[in-house]
Amino acid sequence: MKLLIVGGGSPKTWPDKLTDFDFYIGVDRGSLYLLEAQLPLDLAVGDFDSLTESERQRVFAKSRAHVQAPAEKDDTDTQLALLWATQHYPEAQYTCIGLTGGRIDHFLANLWMVLEPRFAKFIPQICLLDQQNSIHFYLPGEYTIYREKSKKYLAYVCLTPMQSLSLYDSKYTLDQQRITYPIAYASNEFLTNTARFVFSDGILAVIQSKDA
Amino acid sequence: MKLLIVGGGSPKTWPDKLTDFDFYIGVDRGSLYLLEAQLPLDLAVGDFDSLTESERQRVFAKSRAHVQAPAEKDDTDTQLALLWATQHYPEAQYTCIGLTGGRIDHFLANLWMVLEPRFAKFIPQICLLDQQNSIHFYLPGEYTIYREKSKKYLAYVCLTPMQSLSLYDSKYTLDQQRITYPIAYASNEFLTNTARFVFSDGILAVIQSKDA
Repeated sequence: MKLLIVGGGSPKTWPDKLTDFDFYIGVDRGSLYLLEAQLPLDLAVGDFDSLTESERQRVFAKSRAHVQAPAEKDDTDTQLALLWATQHYPEAQYTCIGLTGGRIDHFLANLWMVLEPRFAKFIPQICLLDQQNSIHFYLPGEYTIYREKSKKYLAYVCLTPMQSLSLYDSKYTLDQQRITYPIAYASNEFLTNTARFVFSDGILAVIQSKDA
Repeated sequence: MKLLIVGGGSPKTWPDKLTDFDFYIGVDRGSLYLLEAQLPLDLAVGDFDSLTESERQRVFAKSRAHVQAPAEKDDTDTQLALLWATQHYPEAQYTCIGLTGGRIDHFLANLWMVLEPRFAKFIPQICLLDQQNSIHFYLPGEYTIYREKSKKYLAYVCLTPMQSLSLYDSKYTLDQQRITYPIAYASNEFLTNTARFVFSDGILAVIQSKDA
């Protein structure tokens, strides 16, 4: 099952091809953007502070369901949406858009959701997409990944320290590198259609990207 | 002394008022953007892979000095620029623009430069700016910060785990909170023109932001 979570970032940041999902969740203003894009809105989640009263009424009327959270809460609207998704559809693939660009505090909160223990086991099922970037997350292990056709660059982003990271079959390689603080190894490139990596602990993000 | 470091992000992301710096460093394509904005270009740094040959020649002809790095190197162009700046002007304030938006791998590499031991002692002198966000960095201690007139939101971003973080005089407060993984406490707000915080270890970023 493929589930789409749509944050409040501008639809200009959205990737192409958003029609083949099984369940659409709008996060606050993302709900309105889904309606405006004539896409389904299965669930609207948020405190809806970012909408006018008439916009909120429109979202509630058009969405198949909604969860309204209090404005003053510990979780962000996006955290609430991911929490709902993992509780109701624990086997789904969670594709998240509208979470990048704009406010950097929001983006970092969204990126770092995967570090929270409650989301840890869902990490392999989460990805963040926008026009220029795809971000997939990995738990310790050995992986072969595939080049996305539209992307040029490959980056290995250590969200945590790691005892050992090895990169193979790419322009720049590493052999059992110890990572002592978060670091983004940017501007790597595929040499063929696949690349491999192995790491022992922590959480790794892999970003495939292209120039604007 | 105020030094401006200009990365290759679109000039559309630049904040206003860029005329009152003492020294202007262009990073790769950022050098060309400085010339196009009719701002000074005291130093151009990079491998200049992002420029055509004629653009590169124009940058070299118009810049007061340049440092051309090999394309295959361990540091990013931005790291080289900050390294040069800290070596030649160790007392300066380093304002960095053109580092946000676009490629997320680049942004994270730029954000996390402050975690590198070679830059640690310069952390209080570094800030990242764009149209919507200001990011300042802090070493352990007790601080009073001031609200920026154009900004609405306040976020405390723990780039590292911390033994203890306390937030005072803001909409949401914390009392000696232990931080076990990086987290962005987004959407806080000033109650007056100042806010205070205290932390014991690690590195904290404070982001003031506004909606687009």
